[in-house]
Amino acid sequence: MPYFDHNATTPLAPVAREAWLQVSAETWHNPASPYRDGARARIRLDAVRARLAEFIGCAPELLVFTSGATEGANAVLAHWAQSLPAGSRVAINPTEHPCVLESAKKFFGDRLLWLPVTRAGLVEHAVVKTFFEKHRVAAVIVLAANNETGVLQPWAEIARTCALAGVEYFCDAAQWLGKLPAAGLGGAGWVIGAAHKFGGPKGTGFLKIPVGAESFRAQLGGAQQRGFRGGTEDLAGASAMVAALTDAEQKKVFQESERLRWRGQFEQTVRSIVPGVTVIAAEAERLWNTVSLLMPHTENHRWVTRLDKLGFQVSTGSACATAKEGSSHVLAAMGYAPAEAKRVIRVSSGWETTEAEWNALALALSGLESEFRADNGNVIKI
Amino acid sequence: MPYFDHNATTPLAPVAREAWLQVSAETWHNPASPYRDGARARIRLDAVRARLAEFIGCAPELLVFTSGATEGANAVLAHWAQSLPAGSRVAINPTEHPCVLESAKKFFGDRLLWLPVTRAGLVEHAVVKTFFEKHRVAAVIVLAANNETGVLQPWAEIARTCALAGVEYFCDAAQWLGKLPAAGLGGAGWVIGAAHKFGGPKGTGFLKIPVGAESFRAQLGGAQQRGFRGGTEDLAGASAMVAALTDAEQKKVFQESERLRWRGQFEQTVRSIVPGVTVIAAEAERLWNTVSLLMPHTENHRWVTRLDKLGFQVSTGSACATAKEGSSHVLAAMGYAPAEAKRVIRVSSGWETTEAEWNALALALSGLESEFRADNGNVIKI
Repeated sequence: MPYFDHNATTPLAPVAREAWLQVSAETWHNPASPYRDGARARIRLDAVRARLAEFIGCAPELLVFTSGATEGANAVLAHWAQSLPAGSRVAINPTEHPCVLESAKKFFGDRLLWLPVTRAGLVEHAVVKTFFEKHRVAAVIVLAANNETGVLQPWAEIARTCALAGVEYFCDAAQWLGKLPAAGLGGAGWVIGAAHKFGGPKGTGFLKIPVGAESFRAQLGGAQQRGFRGGTEDLAGASAMVAALTDAEQKKVFQESERLRWRGQFEQTVRSIVPGVTVIAAEAERLWNTVSLLMPHTENHRWVTRLDKLGFQVSTGSACATAKEGSSHVLAAMGYAPAEAKRVIRVSSGWETTEAEWNALALALSGLESEFRADNGNVIKI
Repeated sequence: MPYFDHNATTPLAPVAREAWLQVSAETWHNPASPYRDGARARIRLDAVRARLAEFIGCAPELLVFTSGATEGANAVLAHWAQSLPAGSRVAINPTEHPCVLESAKKFFGDRLLWLPVTRAGLVEHAVVKTFFEKHRVAAVIVLAANNETGVLQPWAEIARTCALAGVEYFCDAAQWLGKLPAAGLGGAGWVIGAAHKFGGPKGTGFLKIPVGAESFRAQLGGAQQRGFRGGTEDLAGASAMVAALTDAEQKKVFQESERLRWRGQFEQTVRSIVPGVTVIAAEAERLWNTVSLLMPHTENHRWVTRLDKLGFQVSTGSACATAKEGSSHVLAAMGYAPAEAKRVIRVSSGWETTEAEWNALALALSGLESEFRADNGNVIKI
């Protein structure tokens, strides 16, 4: 069935499955073991790290394999709490992922300065620059692409500005990686990624640390990963992650413009055949795969449930928020009222999504709109 | 080639590979997603958790899936630092794994009280009891089985004593699980395990928390795992881990006594045909798979290298220490001099290890002993 929730997670890419199986069968030894098969595992781990380093553009020794983006976010904020001067303030984008927001609140609390965002949820580069003139901040947190709206932030410019100002910069690239070029991310200070967002396995990700963060420790334990993260390395997971990224980076080159066109057509169609719908952040630069729709008539859970029955899987915003009470903090930061936010559905395609599936989804939305409109009519009649 | 380093890591069990592949193909959706396939993933995750809970004997809601034992150790010590009364002291066994030792030192430093151990590295239950009379401690840390020597600790008795004294107890069961019955571990306060030590994939493990630890957070982020650990759950990894544990628990029932006999024969043979060898902690109750040998003539790295060339993979103690300087903290705590510790090799078999492989290893050790003795003789002559 048409899967339109790739921002929540993606199916395992065949190349990732193959890499995982191959390593599990051939190179399963502990990379820290003192015999030749241990050395083979170390060499392969270094090769995988070097490959990832090429993609994002940094020295391999700045890459730490983790269990995912959430681990990375927790570790970076915990490190800043210890390494930044006492009383340091951190400027943060309010539309960050919960793993970044919660970690930032825990370690910096009222020393967080909230960056202003536009109605599209955009942190403008100029704003960050002037922000430095108004406030003394030790670090800045702005993600690369938002998971709910797909809005792209000017992370490269912000990274340069932070570097010039001698300010730490943390960039959550979980939604960017595999959809847009990884190149350049190595130039941002602290970067996190999660394999399962781009066809890799769940439970694996990476963290890129800046030069000179020798005291950083994601986990204390053995001397693995040059001490940056204790614990036996998951070589199979890391290999699968990099295989998936390699695959996605190639797809990107040849298919991105076409996929962007399909999304545009979908938005146009929906606007024309679904009265009362609004495309969130329509004017902003967004991921080619993501559309956030403010639907008419009824709450998003009803849209999602009916779409599921019709064979379309979409979500009510962030997956990790599903289990949580209340509505999207992202839409709230963008100025949407709770009642509006509760009518927003997120549509996120993948490289394997077809133009026909986009069109079918538009028609399904149109059909449900008529149905829900009729229902409301009936309600009024009664 | 005969693999005798199962305490470092194990080959992936076929049942674990099958479980991982099945989930990755069929139940890869995000367990937090609002459509039916998301619900299926949630249901499967709950089933896997319930299965694990049956094995160790606790309520399923006390189990948190993690990326491994190291994450669990770091998280428990960090939690204690926040939740225990200010100035609390923690009694700790000096032969713990580095991930526990380093975390304990970071968060409790000079508030750690080192439990005395016997020459075998044993923390006697009576000692723990009297320790409570002498010192006021808020928590106790004693692992279940030592990774270097295989020595078993009286964790069940210690757990009961701590429970009666109203003291927190943390038990690293990474080396126990899959080799000895998991049953009863649910009764210990805080317990950690790592899948790759018993045929599961690397990068996955679990943490069992005690009743009432509602404020515990392994990672901040989404509402996954009832808030205990943010981050998309690795259902494939968790399923593979529990499949491997199920497999190991069954093997245990039918093969444990035989494997214990094989290890005993090996030790007897080695003592008789390798002059000058000592079995570390020979008198203590140990894992059926582990033998720690103090070798004559030359350093352990030379033994390991030559054995590797002869087709036998053994280690120089803990794998995670390989990359580290200096010798084993475990053997030091047991009273062995650095010069002796540098001559110790660790032999750890698996369920698939055969009696013939044990015998072949004994003969290989005997052959190398003659060779190294001759070398030393020559050195003296020169």
